[in-house]
Amino acid sequence: MPNLIPQFKQIKAFVFDVDGVMTPGHVLVTEEGHMLRSVNIKDGFALQHAVKSGYQVGIISGGKSEGMRKRFEGLGITHIYLGQSEKTAAFGDFLKKTGLVAKQVAYMGDDLPDVPVLKLAGLACCPKDACSDVLEVAEFVSQAEGGHGCVRDLIERAMKLQDSWHNDETHKW
Amino acid sequence: MPNLIPQFKQIKAFVFDVDGVMTPGHVLVTEEGHMLRSVNIKDGFALQHAVKSGYQVGIISGGKSEGMRKRFEGLGITHIYLGQSEKTAAFGDFLKKTGLVAKQVAYMGDDLPDVPVLKLAGLACCPKDACSDVLEVAEFVSQAEGGHGCVRDLIERAMKLQDSWHNDETHKW
Amino acid sequence: MPNLIPQFKQIKAFVFDVDGVMTPGHVLVTEEGHMLRSVNIKDGFALQHAVKSGYQVGIISGGKSEGMRKRFEGLGITHIYLGQSEKTAAFGDFLKKTGLVAKQVAYMGDDLPDVPVLKLAGLACCPKDACSDVLEVAEFVSQAEGGHGCVRDLIERAMKLQDSWHNDETHKW
Amino acid sequence: MPNLIPQFKQIKAFVFDVDGVMTPGHVLVTEEGHMLRSVNIKDGFALQHAVKSGYQVGIISGGKSEGMRKRFEGLGITHIYLGQSEKTAAFGDFLKKTGLVAKQVAYMGDDLPDVPVLKLAGLACCPKDACSDVLEVAEFVSQAEGGHGCVRDLIERAMKLQDSWHNDETHKW
Repeated sequence: MPNLIPQFKQIKAFVFDVDGVMTPGHVLVTEEGHMLRSVNIKDGFALQHAVKSGYQVGIISGGKSEGMRKRFEGLGITHIYLGQSEKTAAFGDFLKKTGLVAKQVAYMGDDLPDVPVLKLAGLACCPKDACSDVLEVAEFVSQAEGGHGCVRDLIERAMKLQDSWHNDETHKW
Repeated sequence: MPNLIPQFKQIKAFVFDVDGVMTPGHVLVTEEGHMLRSVNIKDGFALQHAVKSGYQVGIISGGKSEGMRKRFEGLGITHIYLGQSEKTAAFGDFLKKTGLVAKQVAYMGDDLPDVPVLKLAGLACCPKDACSDVLEVAEFVSQAEGGHGCVRDLIERAMKLQDSWHNDETHKW
Repeated sequence: MPNLIPQFKQIKAFVFDVDGVMTPGHVLVTEEGHMLRSVNIKDGFALQHAVKSGYQVGIISGGKSEGMRKRFEGLGITHIYLGQSEKTAAFGDFLKKTGLVAKQVAYMGDDLPDVPVLKLAGLACCPKDACSDVLEVAEFVSQAEGGHGCVRDLIERAMKLQDSWHNDETHKW
Repeated sequence: MPNLIPQFKQIKAFVFDVDGVMTPGHVLVTEEGHMLRSVNIKDGFALQHAVKSGYQVGIISGGKSEGMRKRFEGLGITHIYLGQSEKTAAFGDFLKKTGLVAKQVAYMGDDLPDVPVLKLAGLACCPKDACSDVLEVAEFVSQAEGGHGCVRDLIERAMKLQDSWHNDETHKW
């Protein structure tokens, strides 16, 4: 994807959908009706590494899960928008709070509610198992599936292209 | 599947088995003997989108899970039949309550208890990992497996063929 | 596997290991140290169908899980041996209680503790992801993996070869 | 890998990372924010078999999970280091406590925090889905993925090369 290198190089923030991006897109339903998600540890390493290295990281999800909020907070992520039935408002708030412009932000999503934000973001990204409407608008399609490393793939590529992946913190969690 | 287009176009309702269709066909057994299921979020998006767009959606399952009932109710599904050891009675009740005839209903199932309903429904559907007896009677075999998007595949195909997939609600959950 | 047909035709009982046969071979570890298993619903259908059709069904596992015991009892299985560090004694007890001889019993296992029983059983079976020592002694290697239908595969093949798969109960759970 | 045989033959200890090695690299997040892991039963058989056969076995993880500690203790593993943000100190302590030198120890890890220990160990190992920086330094890359038998693969290979896999305990758990 040589033509994407300029876009990757100007990224200063990563924003992610949750279900189907941070997770494999399924939830475990408990008897009480709670919906439990699985997250990927290699994704988690990249997320906290990006935060420690000075990138802004955000989450915009239609779902609401306090367990997931705790997980993201534990990785050092501060911009967490849950329960968003329509996502562009949260994206606008993220830009306002970080002082960034949209072209500095990579957004990764996998389903129809992500399409409006994908059209705004500087780099529109999705996992390879995104829905067809998302695959049509995405510029960078990770060869990893949701919950199987697509988040890591995006962050590691951007940080390696910006020579920020390997630093004093690389071998620490 | 060009010869199925007329059948897809007359569908006004979608009825689904749960285990192996809505889920990957395995259950997590707790120490108390509860059986927890995983559901697919992209399937969920399509289910609530179909309900909001005016389609009738039903569930007919041999299993009983209050957590799953809450999940389906949360998606706006009102015709939920759990604990059905024999499924044609529930299918008949669904037709009566919705005022539809069988040829307007797509049914998706994956195992032997689904065969009698598959023979009644207007469009007999199954995931690609259905049992051999179901694969023999199915008209539409989704290339997605149970719990991995077969529900989404059926609904998205039917709604796109009926030009009802993209509307004002498409980007909202 | 034409040479196995005589062996399949004389089977009157199915005995199964649990981990890696009934399940995909992984367990979910809770904070309390409980180990939760996933079971396959299509396997479950075949197990209760075999019981209702007059076959003897047994379980011999090194693990101990009360949740799994309830699951097996719910399928109508009565010969359940859990916590067996060495499995041939349980197999001998199963033969004694059922009045069968070893050549009438198919046994399916996937790891080294199953080898002594596989050598005794009338039909030595394993899933395709069994360990190498088991693959060496197995006569019937299911092309399904543990927890992904190997149990169903064995039972459905044997019952179809014996013309007992399709009967009045086939479409009921 | 003929050139690795001398290294495999001098191994007297196995040390493992947890996430992505003992597990598939994802965790299930509960509503309380606990992170539950899945472990592989065939890996577990090999781990307890190695301990009973006189090998030293250790665990060095960045994560902290009391459920996992109980699981490892149940397999007879005594050298368990959890919550290690930087792993070489724990590896040094393991060598001191066991009286072994680094070239007698095989270490398997999958992500950046494992790289410093992989460079010290006598045999640097990883699963096939390790991150790219780990794949570059690993000497033995198991064709099994994390949580899908990479631990079993390493232990079974080493013990078979040392003629210690098959013994009186092989068929017992």
